[in-house]
Amino acid sequence: MGGDFAPRNVLLGAVEALAMASNRFEIILVGPEEKLRNELKQISTGHAKFTFAEASQVIDMHDAATAGIKQKRDSSISVGMTLHKNGNVDAFVSAGHSGAVMSTATLILGRIEGIGRPTIGTFFPTVEGVCLLLDAGANVDCKPQHLYEFALMGSIYTKEMFGIDKPKIALLNIGEEETKGNEAVKEANKLLKQSSLNFIGNVEGRDILSGEADVIVCDGFVGNVILKFGESIPAFFKHQIKKVIQENLLFKLTGLVLRSTLRKAFKSMDYEEFGGVPVLGVNGVTIIGHGKSTPKAIRNMIFRAEEMARKKINSRIQEAIQQ
Amino acid sequence: MGGDFAPRNVLLGAVEALAMASNRFEIILVGPEEKLRNELKQISTGHAKFTFAEASQVIDMHDAATAGIKQKRDSSISVGMTLHKNGNVDAFVSAGHSGAVMSTATLILGRIEGIGRPTIGTFFPTVEGVCLLLDAGANVDCKPQHLYEFALMGSIYTKEMFGIDKPKIALLNIGEEETKGNEAVKEANKLLKQSSLNFIGNVEGRDILSGEADVIVCDGFVGNVILKFGESIPAFFKHQIKKVIQENLLFKLTGLVLRSTLRKAFKSMDYEEFGGVPVLGVNGVTIIGHGKSTPKAIRNMIFRAEEMARKKINSRIQEAIQQ
Repeated sequence: MGGDFAPRNVLLGAVEALAMASNRFEIILVGPEEKLRNELKQISTGHAKFTFAEASQVIDMHDAATAGIKQKRDSSISVGMTLHKNGNVDAFVSAGHSGAVMSTATLILGRIEGIGRPTIGTFFPTVEGVCLLLDAGANVDCKPQHLYEFALMGSIYTKEMFGIDKPKIALLNIGEEETKGNEAVKEANKLLKQSSLNFIGNVEGRDILSGEADVIVCDGFVGNVILKFGESIPAFFKHQIKKVIQENLLFKLTGLVLRSTLRKAFKSMDYEEFGGVPVLGVNGVTIIGHGKSTPKAIRNMIFRAEEMARKKINSRIQEAIQQ
Repeated sequence: MGGDFAPRNVLLGAVEALAMASNRFEIILVGPEEKLRNELKQISTGHAKFTFAEASQVIDMHDAATAGIKQKRDSSISVGMTLHKNGNVDAFVSAGHSGAVMSTATLILGRIEGIGRPTIGTFFPTVEGVCLLLDAGANVDCKPQHLYEFALMGSIYTKEMFGIDKPKIALLNIGEEETKGNEAVKEANKLLKQSSLNFIGNVEGRDILSGEADVIVCDGFVGNVILKFGESIPAFFKHQIKKVIQENLLFKLTGLVLRSTLRKAFKSMDYEEFGGVPVLGVNGVTIIGHGKSTPKAIRNMIFRAEEMARKKINSRIQEAIQQ
């Protein structure tokens, strides 16, 4: 049980997932069992049946990312990840502390052999559809080899999960020419060119939303800044538009229609809509959701996790990295 | 003469500047004199009087940043910068090849003593007003000392030019805690905390538009990606909104009003509106404009350059760095 609206939204999402999937998989709810049972009584659960795994502790936003394997080993993140490690479940999803999920996944599940650094990406909307940007903040001071690994994992993920035959992989840079960029990026460009990936070259910040690439690779420092900057844009424009609307009666009159149009247009920019993001490079299936996940987002995270496990993404990654 | 709409927009901007300033300064037009004289005949110049400095070459977008001091020493950028170096003019402005203006400024004018790396920033709109983000792409693989210098120069610039008493300086990072970030940023945080600047700490990508800081410091790789990503947002939303408008008759009917509202709201995101950006850290006053500069932007660049020269920003920087 994690996230700002836990356990309510998590339970609602889990109920929805089981209903839509006609119970073809099972869900173990990890958290304080009594509290969860009481909460379940208050919602309509239909035919959903759950089992429970007791976890008494909560990792909150003020805890360090390492809390799951240090101070709070009885948190839902640690207990759930251990169930996964021991083979009791095929995947683990959480809308809790992202850093803690990432660290706990890496330390409890371990890295896929040959992967130096597991990664979390983020999905950006594009004029064409969607783009996976990796790394979104889990790794800073990345070496060229790490950037190459992100590209490889992103390529396999988008191929298997989105059915893209040869995902277009790009390297985020400050110019299209190979000579542009910092040292790590210049070296990564060489590695990517020599690889068997469908590497389309460097792209710039302006190309993220253009749909040129299916996967864009960058250092987690850059990725995280872009992710958070992007998330702040809808609120900023709402603020600017509010000012403009107040200037003019005609604008005021159309304000309501305007707002609903914008809400729709901005939705595509909303991280939430994509559900969660996978941790790639660990020996297991883990999806991290936004803290503000709605029941729908939770449901989608569960479906995505089931699909990742079913499609054996990790085996594909392991085969590819060992070649 | 530089920029996508040169010489027309540059000449119109120069005429406007002289008219609004009642000829309190002089402008030397640098470029192919005959062509400029012919172009001037086609526009209404009022009482504007210009002198000319012949420059036969043009640095175009395919030239390297070093072209101004290597292959094309008779370009308007090199000729104009040399006039400035020799004391014939107090400032140089250009809407041409940014990289070439930056390199030529650094190599012909030289660095201010004590400054390791001159920088170019970019202005972001905020809910409060405006924020200067430094570096916007001139410097990658920055050392902590460089980030500190950017902060110092940004502080002096915003104090003198915008009249902000104690500009709030922030360090762009992937978390607010001091322990977050890459190695360079962690060290820079220490330097900034020890400095006499009004350092408000780390900010994240989401805080760029919030108005928390007057100056945000980052490596040029990150700054450039954010700048270009930001520039791509209005077009992306226009595309998304177009799709939404087509879905619904009511939306269609209000489409026109919607468009003009959005145009106004997006203007604040438009780099163009801020005119140009200063090169900070060189022995001279140089403003770089957007390639698509309008006459208004050119006019504002000229005013900003005159103000920078008058306020002796470089002397202030030199005094501060030597303390």
